[in-house]
Amino acid sequence: MSLLVVGTVAFDAIETPFGKTDKILGGAATYIGLSASYFLKNSNLVSVVGEDFPQEHINLLTGKGVNVDGLQIKKGEKTFFWSGKYHIDMNSRDTLDTQLNVLATFDPIVPEAYKNAQFLMLGNLMPSIQQKVLNQLPNRPKLIVLDTMNFWMDNFLDDLLASLKNVDVLTINDEEARQLSGEFSLVKAAKKILKMGPKFLIIKKGEQGALLFNEHEVFFAPALPLEEVFDPTGAGDTFAGGFIGYLASTKDISFENMKRAVIYGSAMASFCVEKFGTERMQNLTKEEIHYRVNAFIDLVQFEIELP
Amino acid sequence: MSLLVVGTVAFDAIETPFGKTDKILGGAATYIGLSASYFLKNSNLVSVVGEDFPQEHINLLTGKGVNVDGLQIKKGEKTFFWSGKYHIDMNSRDTLDTQLNVLATFDPIVPEAYKNAQFLMLGNLMPSIQQKVLNQLPNRPKLIVLDTMNFWMDNFLDDLLASLKNVDVLTINDEEARQLSGEFSLVKAAKKILKMGPKFLIIKKGEQGALLFNEHEVFFAPALPLEEVFDPTGAGDTFAGGFIGYLASTKDISFENMKRAVIYGSAMASFCVEKFGTERMQNLTKEEIHYRVNAFIDLVQFEIELP
Repeated sequence: MSLLVVGTVAFDAIETPFGKTDKILGGAATYIGLSASYFLKNSNLVSVVGEDFPQEHINLLTGKGVNVDGLQIKKGEKTFFWSGKYHIDMNSRDTLDTQLNVLATFDPIVPEAYKNAQFLMLGNLMPSIQQKVLNQLPNRPKLIVLDTMNFWMDNFLDDLLASLKNVDVLTINDEEARQLSGEFSLVKAAKKILKMGPKFLIIKKGEQGALLFNEHEVFFAPALPLEEVFDPTGAGDTFAGGFIGYLASTKDISFENMKRAVIYGSAMASFCVEKFGTERMQNLTKEEIHYRVNAFIDLVQFEIELP
Repeated sequence: MSLLVVGTVAFDAIETPFGKTDKILGGAATYIGLSASYFLKNSNLVSVVGEDFPQEHINLLTGKGVNVDGLQIKKGEKTFFWSGKYHIDMNSRDTLDTQLNVLATFDPIVPEAYKNAQFLMLGNLMPSIQQKVLNQLPNRPKLIVLDTMNFWMDNFLDDLLASLKNVDVLTINDEEARQLSGEFSLVKAAKKILKMGPKFLIIKKGEQGALLFNEHEVFFAPALPLEEVFDPTGAGDTFAGGFIGYLASTKDISFENMKRAVIYGSAMASFCVEKFGTERMQNLTKEEIHYRVNAFIDLVQFEIELP
């Protein structure tokens, strides 16, 4: 049992230029868990929901091999809810509503059976909660990936900086990399951020792809050019799930293998955006994934013989 | 003698967050010619300047093997002048001044010795002037590349659409691709534009790389992540010069070879932006170019074995 995923399990209501949804299944840990499930038979989830969370959503996760012993269900309380509306270019969105509900008092408890996790994915959450999970593990995992966002940089920067000292891979977007480092150039930003603790940095640029940095190397994976981006919600988490799922399945955390993991993560994200919410992530086949990875190979591979 | 380059030779005055210049050497054909010179011993230029154009700039071009028999020097007139200021993100700029001068009445004349060009680069100019050059060639070149911009779409769309029927490769940026096609998705935009005449389309996305499309395939080359973009002026033309220079030097216009040409074009553009104007393009070495192409290989290449 090697992957532990911590993050939100939530309801989302989404509006895009193509349509809108009522409350549907969402949350970082949901997308991460679904995406990783295509690489791993089993994974472990730590999260919290309210009494209003339907059994069918839980069944979806367990059906994908996601162990929910660490999913707290709070009687008489409501599940975290987020509502947002995407602009026409799909690169920006307005938050229409955020109801923290059970998340306001979330105290993560890692079940005993989870404690020997070799791969830990700390999905976007308050940094102190991410840290609390890490503190419950008796042995340091082989790889710790942390995702975060500008909100925590604005309001809990000290906690975040403390957490960064303990992680291997940080995933943030380009604007967040600029904010965290104070550098406009992403190359300079990466250099500064890698001095804050992480050994690897992934800068997610949405439809402009993703950059993977370590101290001496950089790798770039484009996003697949798609005819339509239907709903970007969860794409970053789906990327992270594919990334850590692939690494956990191969047990190889070299830079060369992380390149592959970035490609798999990008492939999974390219599915996620094709339909609303988690819909496309619920029933993928191995063949579809291989076909998609092949599209990435065709997209970027070339052969040049230098003299 | 196989490459014919048509386009502006100009004075630019540039302001960036890093500094500003007086009137320096600029113009699409200048950048294209300099960039292509690293792939070809000789090329032919058709353009126009005024009496104010210094001999040293002409010497720079001829020193790089650019034949200037087709460069008209108009007595008593002044060279085309453009002045612009880049915003802090370097992705957008304001035009401060445009003085057409000799360009207002430019009537291109292709010298006899140029007329068997096998590769034709129609740099950004009024579409009817680009067409006039094409009309003077008794035999259709093996490859015709046309660069254009939104200004011509706004004001001379019919002329542009007529020209597009005669070209092999169109190079435009992402916003221009959206404008020309009326499609937001670049994949959909490419499909529409490829029905307008060109067999290949290159969509330039500046620091977000470039996409190469034909009817059935797509290839993506990122821009190299740089610590500093000092001055983006001429980067698109430098890309085009590297692209067509590489193709002309290899005489292979297959999609596979165009991929390589896009990488070489991107490598050349990554040098261009490192200094003001043409400065960095004046004295590159073959070793520097190979080293840079290797950086592209490191940036995007990965190995995945699919089952």
